[in-house]
Amino acid sequence: MTVVEIQLKRLHDDLADLAAVGSTGDGGNCRLALSDDDAGGRELVTGWMRELGLDVRVDRIGNVVATRAGRDPSLAPVMTGSHIDTVRTGGRYDGTLGVLAGLEVVRALDDAGVRTRRPLAVAFFTDEEGSRFAPDMLGSLTYVGGLALEEALGIVGIDGAVLGAELERIGWAGDAPVPGPAPHAFVELHIEQGPVLEEAGLTIGAVTGVQGISWQELTLTGQSNHAGTTPLRLRRDPALVAAHVVTAVRRLAAELGGHQVGTVGRLDLHPDLVNVVAARATLTVDLRNTDDAVLTEAERRLAAAVSLAAEAEGVGREWRRLARFAPVTFDPTVVGMVEAAARARGHGVTRLPSGAGHDAQMLARVCPTGMVFVPSRGGVSHNPAEHTDPADLAAGTQVLLDVLVELAS
Amino acid sequence: MTVVEIQLKRLHDDLADLAAVGSTGDGGNCRLALSDDDAGGRELVTGWMRELGLDVRVDRIGNVVATRAGRDPSLAPVMTGSHIDTVRTGGRYDGTLGVLAGLEVVRALDDAGVRTRRPLAVAFFTDEEGSRFAPDMLGSLTYVGGLALEEALGIVGIDGAVLGAELERIGWAGDAPVPGPAPHAFVELHIEQGPVLEEAGLTIGAVTGVQGISWQELTLTGQSNHAGTTPLRLRRDPALVAAHVVTAVRRLAAELGGHQVGTVGRLDLHPDLVNVVAARATLTVDLRNTDDAVLTEAERRLAAAVSLAAEAEGVGREWRRLARFAPVTFDPTVVGMVEAAARARGHGVTRLPSGAGHDAQMLARVCPTGMVFVPSRGGVSHNPAEHTDPADLAAGTQVLLDVLVELAS
Repeated sequence: MTVVEIQLKRLHDDLADLAAVGSTGDGGNCRLALSDDDAGGRELVTGWMRELGLDVRVDRIGNVVATRAGRDPSLAPVMTGSHIDTVRTGGRYDGTLGVLAGLEVVRALDDAGVRTRRPLAVAFFTDEEGSRFAPDMLGSLTYVGGLALEEALGIVGIDGAVLGAELERIGWAGDAPVPGPAPHAFVELHIEQGPVLEEAGLTIGAVTGVQGISWQELTLTGQSNHAGTTPLRLRRDPALVAAHVVTAVRRLAAELGGHQVGTVGRLDLHPDLVNVVAARATLTVDLRNTDDAVLTEAERRLAAAVSLAAEAEGVGREWRRLARFAPVTFDPTVVGMVEAAARARGHGVTRLPSGAGHDAQMLARVCPTGMVFVPSRGGVSHNPAEHTDPADLAAGTQVLLDVLVELAS
Repeated sequence: MTVVEIQLKRLHDDLADLAAVGSTGDGGNCRLALSDDDAGGRELVTGWMRELGLDVRVDRIGNVVATRAGRDPSLAPVMTGSHIDTVRTGGRYDGTLGVLAGLEVVRALDDAGVRTRRPLAVAFFTDEEGSRFAPDMLGSLTYVGGLALEEALGIVGIDGAVLGAELERIGWAGDAPVPGPAPHAFVELHIEQGPVLEEAGLTIGAVTGVQGISWQELTLTGQSNHAGTTPLRLRRDPALVAAHVVTAVRRLAAELGGHQVGTVGRLDLHPDLVNVVAARATLTVDLRNTDDAVLTEAERRLAAAVSLAAEAEGVGREWRRLARFAPVTFDPTVVGMVEAAARARGHGVTRLPSGAGHDAQMLARVCPTGMVFVPSRGGVSHNPAEHTDPADLAAGTQVLLDVLVELAS
């Protein structure tokens, strides 16, 4: 068997060139979906795809799939890829690594003169971040038939722009149909966006799936009062109830253990004045677990804790569900391949779930899917300080290549 | 002894006429200190003072003192009064009641042909609310020599205006010197701005003093992280620590009992996003007690609770003191007179401390001082819904008259 080796320098140069498009000047990037800078990134990357002789197709939601022919053109391709759009204050690795590593895989195969049995496709999907047009993972969701094209094109962004009109404006409304054809398998390389690999001193994560997500908004309504003149027994303080909710979220997550996490990231008091007992508190609760039954139990314990605290203080409560996604489990064979490839290359590896959403979870609906994680320094992502060591970039890209070659054989 | 009776209708008409100046159209008032509407209120009230034949003096910080001659002009006057400025969304009774009730007392004495031995002065003090120019009770503080005139005139408001320039602009920089002459005694009628009298079904509060106030701002600095990818054990979440502080404030206040209250009215997370563990939490803690030693103990317990919670989570903390006022104790003789006058008129009365600040606490530095409270419906104040029943307005004004006459005899 021919040993095919990736070259870090080429990948590194591509990452730097793409990071120059929509640069925020502080090491970060802003290429919001379907913005002019997103179009600039698309031009650059598809230019590279064409230079590599790939067959580049753009579909009606702007997803780009670039295919390298295999020995048997009748077979479905093995696909890799990710996204090149960013959040408003994004880094240079989130998404882009998975796309540009795919191109480096193609180059390495070309250099080695290796032609896989199945075609190999490198894709980037429209609007993975969802920062401008909700929901996130919009392009891959549409690709797998989870969102109707007309519905997707009609989505209005945070700036009032209509998705379909923006797609036309920047010239990236293609003619390939959606839903698109199911690949034979899908493997995505991505930065971890969390601290687990770094903490454990490991290079590769064999991603077992994506955590289920429960987002709820809770509005607590009490009685605004003078902080000096209102005795404790006459107070109905929504800030106190909100505080009990915050501590309950941490407690229930700790008690449930395993991969359960829980976060109150948003908490607003009204009128938010030093000497006024708040009239209203609004907070969000983000609960995630790889096990849907445990996630449901977490929601149940949260609701019970909120009822208890709110009733004790005589505070009204109103729930609004912001999001609820069931956990996604990746294909055990693909996960095993990632783990084995990492070990074969001598890298420290662990199985772990993804706490963030990825295009791979959409592709998992239609084909065997897996992901390769590489460490994020300090767990930082969606931030100009986002960083992955070059050696880890190389390791992840090599593992990706090895798994893709195996799947395409 | 001549029985002198106040007339509710005249007081009620004056309150309505003054409420028409700077009306917010929803039953509320906005006469921020030294604004055009404040000037309008000043014109109206001093017009009434002059119609009553009072000797109206304006001092260099804009305080107005209107004096009714006594039988012995060599004696210091007994003073009553309050303020006519309001917060941005104020009601029609806070402050104004104490000033206009003073004018009704004068009218009632005139009607009855009663001339007191001591002169009787009705005052309104500049910028009691502090909403535009901090600190609050600025005019009375300057009157008693607690703030130097030049310093007061140089204060810059929230709108960038300079106090002295605004005072000149609206034409209310007078020539009476500050500090002003100490009265023989000072009695202020005010709405309770709290729920205690209404809850107890009582008409009159004989105010024993003003609670000491401790305002602190606490900034908690943790580590912003992805809510999905960061395991609990790696989190340094300032929102969680803030929640522990909120619950600790309620707990310590309840444990200390008596008149101890504690409030977290302001709490801001940054970046305040559903799926991001906050980087920073900023909150304020308002602690009040009539007993300075207990208030200091409350501060000690708060600091201990913050240290415990912050260290457990690895979160940094920074304290900023926003205000610290020692409790004020009113003159026992005056407090006793208020209580006795209420009983003599057949009104339900209780002794209680004020949880809010008042001009009377400044006058207490220079003369025997007391206050009369009347109920606030629902404890609501600083709000267009501020309301006191007409019968309670009448009762409070009558008690004020009886006490002033006794003090001036």
